[in-house]
Amino acid sequence: MSEPLRAAVIGAGYWGPNLARNFRGSPDWDLVAVCDLDEARARKVVGDRSTVEVMTSVDALLARDDVDAVAIATPAGTHARLALAALDAGKHVVVEKPIASTSADARRMVQRAGEVGRVLMVDHTFCYTPVVLRIRDMIAEGTIGDLNFVDSVRINLGLVQPDVDVFWDLAPHDLSILDFILPGGLQPVGVAAQGADPIGAGQSCVGYLTLPLPGGAIAHVHVNWLSPTKIRQMVVGGSKQTLVWDDLQPQQRLTVYDRGVHLGEPLADKTTTNVSYRIGDAWAPALPEKEALGAMVGEFAAAIREGRAPRTDGHAGLRVLEVLEAVSRSLADGGRLIEVGSVDAAGVGA
Amino acid sequence: MSEPLRAAVIGAGYWGPNLARNFRGSPDWDLVAVCDLDEARARKVVGDRSTVEVMTSVDALLARDDVDAVAIATPAGTHARLALAALDAGKHVVVEKPIASTSADARRMVQRAGEVGRVLMVDHTFCYTPVVLRIRDMIAEGTIGDLNFVDSVRINLGLVQPDVDVFWDLAPHDLSILDFILPGGLQPVGVAAQGADPIGAGQSCVGYLTLPLPGGAIAHVHVNWLSPTKIRQMVVGGSKQTLVWDDLQPQQRLTVYDRGVHLGEPLADKTTTNVSYRIGDAWAPALPEKEALGAMVGEFAAAIREGRAPRTDGHAGLRVLEVLEAVSRSLADGGRLIEVGSVDAAGVGA
Amino acid sequence: MSEPLRAAVIGAGYWGPNLARNFRGSPDWDLVAVCDLDEARARKVVGDRSTVEVMTSVDALLARDDVDAVAIATPAGTHARLALAALDAGKHVVVEKPIASTSADARRMVQRAGEVGRVLMVDHTFCYTPVVLRIRDMIAEGTIGDLNFVDSVRINLGLVQPDVDVFWDLAPHDLSILDFILPGGLQPVGVAAQGADPIGAGQSCVGYLTLPLPGGAIAHVHVNWLSPTKIRQMVVGGSKQTLVWDDLQPQQRLTVYDRGVHLGEPLADKTTTNVSYRIGDAWAPALPEKEALGAMVGEFAAAIREGRAPRTDGHAGLRVLEVLEAVSRSLADGGRLIEVGSVDAAGVGA
Amino acid sequence: MSEPLRAAVIGAGYWGPNLARNFRGSPDWDLVAVCDLDEARARKVVGDRSTVEVMTSVDALLARDDVDAVAIATPAGTHARLALAALDAGKHVVVEKPIASTSADARRMVQRAGEVGRVLMVDHTFCYTPVVLRIRDMIAEGTIGDLNFVDSVRINLGLVQPDVDVFWDLAPHDLSILDFILPGGLQPVGVAAQGADPIGAGQSCVGYLTLPLPGGAIAHVHVNWLSPTKIRQMVVGGSKQTLVWDDLQPQQRLTVYDRGVHLGEPLADKTTTNVSYRIGDAWAPALPEKEALGAMVGEFAAAIREGRAPRTDGHAGLRVLEVLEAVSRSLADGGRLIEVGSVDAAGVGA
Repeated sequence: MSEPLRAAVIGAGYWGPNLARNFRGSPDWDLVAVCDLDEARARKVVGDRSTVEVMTSVDALLARDDVDAVAIATPAGTHARLALAALDAGKHVVVEKPIASTSADARRMVQRAGEVGRVLMVDHTFCYTPVVLRIRDMIAEGTIGDLNFVDSVRINLGLVQPDVDVFWDLAPHDLSILDFILPGGLQPVGVAAQGADPIGAGQSCVGYLTLPLPGGAIAHVHVNWLSPTKIRQMVVGGSKQTLVWDDLQPQQRLTVYDRGVHLGEPLADKTTTNVSYRIGDAWAPALPEKEALGAMVGEFAAAIREGRAPRTDGHAGLRVLEVLEAVSRSLADGGRLIEVGSVDAAGVGA
Repeated sequence: MSEPLRAAVIGAGYWGPNLARNFRGSPDWDLVAVCDLDEARARKVVGDRSTVEVMTSVDALLARDDVDAVAIATPAGTHARLALAALDAGKHVVVEKPIASTSADARRMVQRAGEVGRVLMVDHTFCYTPVVLRIRDMIAEGTIGDLNFVDSVRINLGLVQPDVDVFWDLAPHDLSILDFILPGGLQPVGVAAQGADPIGAGQSCVGYLTLPLPGGAIAHVHVNWLSPTKIRQMVVGGSKQTLVWDDLQPQQRLTVYDRGVHLGEPLADKTTTNVSYRIGDAWAPALPEKEALGAMVGEFAAAIREGRAPRTDGHAGLRVLEVLEAVSRSLADGGRLIEVGSVDAAGVGA
Repeated sequence: MSEPLRAAVIGAGYWGPNLARNFRGSPDWDLVAVCDLDEARARKVVGDRSTVEVMTSVDALLARDDVDAVAIATPAGTHARLALAALDAGKHVVVEKPIASTSADARRMVQRAGEVGRVLMVDHTFCYTPVVLRIRDMIAEGTIGDLNFVDSVRINLGLVQPDVDVFWDLAPHDLSILDFILPGGLQPVGVAAQGADPIGAGQSCVGYLTLPLPGGAIAHVHVNWLSPTKIRQMVVGGSKQTLVWDDLQPQQRLTVYDRGVHLGEPLADKTTTNVSYRIGDAWAPALPEKEALGAMVGEFAAAIREGRAPRTDGHAGLRVLEVLEAVSRSLADGGRLIEVGSVDAAGVGA
Repeated sequence: MSEPLRAAVIGAGYWGPNLARNFRGSPDWDLVAVCDLDEARARKVVGDRSTVEVMTSVDALLARDDVDAVAIATPAGTHARLALAALDAGKHVVVEKPIASTSADARRMVQRAGEVGRVLMVDHTFCYTPVVLRIRDMIAEGTIGDLNFVDSVRINLGLVQPDVDVFWDLAPHDLSILDFILPGGLQPVGVAAQGADPIGAGQSCVGYLTLPLPGGAIAHVHVNWLSPTKIRQMVVGGSKQTLVWDDLQPQQRLTVYDRGVHLGEPLADKTTTNVSYRIGDAWAPALPEKEALGAMVGEFAAAIREGRAPRTDGHAGLRVLEVLEAVSRSLADGGRLIEVGSVDAAGVGA
């Protein structure tokens, strides 16, 4: 195996420690430093009896020669500035989701990465779970038949936040998964969103998001901060098979129902629809239990080494962000179906 | 106990046999006759070695003196005609859901029942299950606190029908439950619906229905004919407790999470929202396992004997129907939020 | 289809009504009469507006010409007397489990049925469920490989009885299933039983039953009246596949794990065992949801018409009873492993 | 907070890395060294960019002044020798389960720890989970009423081992939990065991263990290496409440059924037992999700600092071991009920 690449993590808050742990545990990486304005917080991530460096200056970090790549786990509003600086310093970059706080920023990041020839990756963590990889394969191989619908529920007692609504907080997970499993990525016909703020938090705490897809299928996402019962379930319905992913059942995360609905030729009498059902067995593929972040840092290293785009690259992050922006516009317009990227897509080459 | 009331069932198709079985098994009722245009079908419901009469003429049935009440289990388009005739003949009437195929019809039925002083009831079956009664009580008693959201999922491999979409087929269940458990009945601020017909059936096979409620809460219903996996779940989120009803878990149908989200006074620094969480135990009330239809026919008898409106009366049926009509208008208008009853509510005294 | 056979049910207590309902609903049968010492109880089973006769005399019932077969649903101690009388009167007989209260009685019943050429069947209801049929097939076809173990749990808040312990009350279900699914029937090497009576009921309320099987496999049964949580689960472990039947999961009653353990040639160094594991997918066969008793009365009719032994014949009932007798002897002897039928098997021709 | 205690881990195989990780993450501890004959294996546990020392000599480790305590995670047969040496060197000791391979060794360890005034602890990990602590409290506080039965199932595709049967491999978990939750510790009236080796592994791969308890209750343990489906469930039945712990349901690990069976005065007629049932709600206490090993190393530190016996001390380890020895004797004697410690208990002061 080649020499490990050298990484630094910027941001020691909620997600940074997970990134640091996975860089440390990976044979592909050598974690050189953790950087945070709060030195004690960074120190806690590094731990005692460690020679990983603790830094408080991003500039100093980016000036180092012994750092090949940085992982940015800071608030979304700072992603663009930090990522652009890192790219300019010749570092490869992986950023937390969402890729940025505006699609204009995201486009700048994508463009700059291309210019400087560095990898720009978004940590769409779920795309590195064995179950999502399997779902993607089953769709791509056509075993589920034509896609009919995708229904995703992600509800939990969540951290109500002052500046981000439940769509921007949780839906990036669902949208990045959709972007990953749908052939051609997430390209909805439009976006319609309904939200509610029953507790007076100042932004939506319960959200419903409908995405008509090309070809007549429909995707729907339910995100909710106010549910004390946790549900994380995605149903992918096809004409031949339907997949049910229940992420809270580690013993049987994915169930494949070998059943489907088929519409035949119209009947002469028109009194009944010529629909046939096929009821077959269900099965649960054996899936490895691997930490997704471990696979993510592995893919980051592989993309760097092979000089190719990573699985969840900047374009994927941008597509997700454009849907989020359309959500906000739909909410502001009474739930009307909004075209994605319609506002300023004209001048964009992403 | 007083003498049993005498019932007849009209319609021996899908639901009629269930009604007949429950009238037969009830101490409140004596099933006198089953009526269907198809005599053999009616005979099959009655069975051998039985003196319950089989009839093929509704007129002859309604002319009988020994029938106090009729249960109408025929296609929705025939409900109004049959129910009006039965009321005019002095019979008490219970009809299958939906009460009628138009709200104008339903209003006529409600008005006629009032005029002739007979009971008009809708068989909103789920409102007679122990679990729904318990949910209604918990909301009414205030134990869940303020209502935040209701999320209902009813998906299954369904009988795609040529003349009824998935909203009209399945959502009456969810809407009648909402009408029953919400204090004051179902009075949404509006209705927004999104549907999809990915198999080219000619009407929506997957449907999403959003109902903003007065006071900032939101209700949402997902109905789906194309899912081979059956899900019947309703989450009722309150400020103090959240109820999760999973109808496919007979061992623990209802779980009450003694947890909630509370929004306090705004914080001075505005950087975080002042939200507090309470994490308590979950509990599952012991619920009797009783067949809902048995309770329904019991309520029908009690309403007749006590000269009062039944729990799910014609007005309830009308409220549900008006929401369904608004759903159709929203679908035709690209998912726009539609006011319920807005088209012709002006001239109606229901 | 040929004319229906004519049945009567003797005993209108706990199980009789279920039998009556299934004879009535079967195209193979015409239910002629229900007989019970308590006329009102029998009347309640028959219901109003019915011409099924209510009788209080078994002698009168057995004297009738228009009854082909009787179903005996009375206490176990009366089974032998009633069944022998019915066989002598030329009736075919199905009896509730256990077939009788002593194996001597059961042998007499089996012998008499042979002499008079009538069907003697035991209502081992579970053997008529789709899931047990499927398990039997999978074992018989060799798809699970060599049988390693069977583990059955049947616990529930049960009716503690004054004269029957938990083994005699509940284990007949497990033993009859074992007898049905094991190739060659239930022929254990021995029986060891441990019981407990923590509430001072006078007999075992919690019971554990171990049955070493020929070839090194082992079966084990846990029966328990004192558990308020209901568990009905059977695991059938084979060298290639393992079956898990959870009867309280109607959505996925049977799961087949395509995994197994294989012992290879001994290793040279002896420090580790040469065991290999195969981890494959799990799958859940689609099973019809049919009432087992309906299939049972159908098999009863088919055996009569075809002049053959039914699937759960008197011999099966006898094998189960002999294990129960061995259980009692093991309990009385401190849990020692007891040979089945060892006491008086010598003089018996069953 | 006082200065951290200084720990070293001996053995870098299966369990050692978990211990090392928890000592490192604990504010109570400073991990000084990891010791293993295989230097590379120890190095892998320590990781790069670390100043934790890697050692290959236990003697050198025990000679160090800067080590207060050692954790021994080596094969059971080496526990006694290593622990005695460590105690003699003045170190506090925690050993993996089982405490030793013979009760004679375990007694020596207990005695030596007392003589040198050092803490001897056994890593009965499950006793440090929130759920087991809660179960212990509920039994101790009497909320479950009188104990009726404990039924434990621990089955999984396990590592068939050449020198240890399934009882010695898996049952220490169940026995240590029983020892922890039963008031007064595990003091069974006797032990009866039945095992099977259907694959010809040379020792039991499937095991059933019955432990009659004082007062008429019974405990039972099912351990199994051959089941590809994982079940980890313990039911604790009391006269007032029953606890069901399903360790594979993180969302609801513990359910308390507020139901029970009560035996009243004998009835005059003796025909029925005077048993009453109470059917109440079920509830699931909110339990923190904390890693048990973290709590274990915390208890180890607390016991050292407070100069007291830890929660799972050497005596607990010895009680578990004596039951395991009785299991082996029962197996060798055809499953006969064996008295615990009966062989050589006479001369022992433990």
